[in-house]
Amino acid sequence: MKEIIFLNTIRKVLSNTEYLGDDCANLKELGIAVTQDTLVENVHFSMKYCNAYQLGYKAIVVNLSDLFAAGAKPEYISISLSLPPDTTEDFIHDFYKATDELAKKYDFKVIGGDITGSEKIVISICAIGKTKNRNISSRAFAKEGYTVIVTGEHGSSSAGLELLQSGKFNEKFINAHLMPEISSEFSEEISTKTSKPYAMADSSDGLADALFKIAESSNVTICVDFDKIPYEKDLEQFDYKKKILFGGEDYKLVASVDKTELEKISSNLYTIIGTVEKKESCPLKIKTKDKIIKIKDLENTFNHFKGD
Amino acid sequence: MKEIIFLNTIRKVLSNTEYLGDDCANLKELGIAVTQDTLVENVHFSMKYCNAYQLGYKAIVVNLSDLFAAGAKPEYISISLSLPPDTTEDFIHDFYKATDELAKKYDFKVIGGDITGSEKIVISICAIGKTKNRNISSRAFAKEGYTVIVTGEHGSSSAGLELLQSGKFNEKFINAHLMPEISSEFSEEISTKTSKPYAMADSSDGLADALFKIAESSNVTICVDFDKIPYEKDLEQFDYKKKILFGGEDYKLVASVDKTELEKISSNLYTIIGTVEKKESCPLKIKTKDKIIKIKDLENTFNHFKGD
Repeated sequence: MKEIIFLNTIRKVLSNTEYLGDDCANLKELGIAVTQDTLVENVHFSMKYCNAYQLGYKAIVVNLSDLFAAGAKPEYISISLSLPPDTTEDFIHDFYKATDELAKKYDFKVIGGDITGSEKIVISICAIGKTKNRNISSRAFAKEGYTVIVTGEHGSSSAGLELLQSGKFNEKFINAHLMPEISSEFSEEISTKTSKPYAMADSSDGLADALFKIAESSNVTICVDFDKIPYEKDLEQFDYKKKILFGGEDYKLVASVDKTELEKISSNLYTIIGTVEKKESCPLKIKTKDKIIKIKDLENTFNHFKGD
Repeated sequence: MKEIIFLNTIRKVLSNTEYLGDDCANLKELGIAVTQDTLVENVHFSMKYCNAYQLGYKAIVVNLSDLFAAGAKPEYISISLSLPPDTTEDFIHDFYKATDELAKKYDFKVIGGDITGSEKIVISICAIGKTKNRNISSRAFAKEGYTVIVTGEHGSSSAGLELLQSGKFNEKFINAHLMPEISSEFSEEISTKTSKPYAMADSSDGLADALFKIAESSNVTICVDFDKIPYEKDLEQFDYKKKILFGGEDYKLVASVDKTELEKISSNLYTIIGTVEKKESCPLKIKTKDKIIKIKDLENTFNHFKGD
């Protein structure tokens, strides 16, 4: 993966790398967490499959999800749009209609950004959340004995994308892909009711990826019981195990939390799927009915689940 | 201009527009100013004319310049890169080499961002500056009787771009375009030594554009003496009047300041070019040797200066 090589190069070149590592930068001195995500047309989305309202919705929640993964409360959002010459006023109207509705729902303010020309649509959003009086997560905070939980259901977004690409329709899955529900309530509770360190990430790049990154950053092994991972029953029509673990873009939360701390959080907001163990040769172990799959390297893991 | 139509649409759709208007959003509650700028390949830059180091340099200073125009002190920078598949490690190395040098020079930290794929290079940077104990500008703060000043020389960047596009060479102008010097010292002094409101903007879209926007936002007319605007003598080989007023990308500061307040600032850091007057029928008047040009509309003003 070129991205990893590039990130290593960046770490080598920069004199100060203390703020790199998590999806959000936790700027303690200012009491804020900051995240920035960019969506590029035909890489992250296609206007064949969504409208401007759905695009605006997704571009915003992708960033809110990063703040929620940190345990921060969204406060300000800056939006930079690069747009082709044929962009219409209706596009802008609908994109910002979604933005405004989310601003009301999650209580944040839009603080500007810019509009520039470009061949393809590029949306770059910077989101700022408050961290004051909150317990803020880090990928590196998982500890042996911690409980591993997820919010929501997994794999639906990937099924939605497959349906869109094949011209089929199923509202549930397509909505999960185009307008994912994010886990603000769990984030609010864990960051305001707990006090011990916890590790949290969102499942933007897939559930296995989030678990893997937490385990690697925390120097532990995470052991997950596959059968405990919640998913929509109809997903079994698809290559569902792969979608649940590697699908991506569900934007649900994945956390490793102290057991007693977890009890402070409303139990309807999460599902326990595993535990944090002492570091073994692999960062991630997934138990299925008849075997334990050890994941050493995410890239080559797909095959383990084919026809499993 | 479509951008203006789009910005009006955004203002209509959003329920809360209090943070829109200036290049930086001034978040008083957090003691920070935030700006975001995006550069798109073949729209804002071409790899035919610059290398990765120069691109990194410019992408960063464009954002620092917005913070300096607010009177804020740069503290944190988030960088989102969208890169074509053929991007090399050397590109990343050189881009971040420039970033790191600027981080040391201007004392800010890089707090992350992301790397994604794309057909063309897109760089979106979000910069956060501190505003605590500083007098922060707004475009709307110019008042009748204020003195109008600029920092640095004007028009050189546009000459540099013309040279690059025509395959000619002149280090002075080309450097002014690829690696513009920004006005941190003036920004530091005006924001820490003065206490009355002042209007400031950078000349990213041209000197006339910055003056025009300040005048319109402040509901005044700005009167400028063209002969007082500093420029590099060799610029006279070009269509220099046009370049000075409308060239853009010089990233110098333009301010309207109370006269007594201005005296607190080191006089070598700025040049007085005009005054703020009561609002007339046009936001901007430019005096040349033999006439006064009234600018009501930036789009149609170029012609006044042709062969003048």
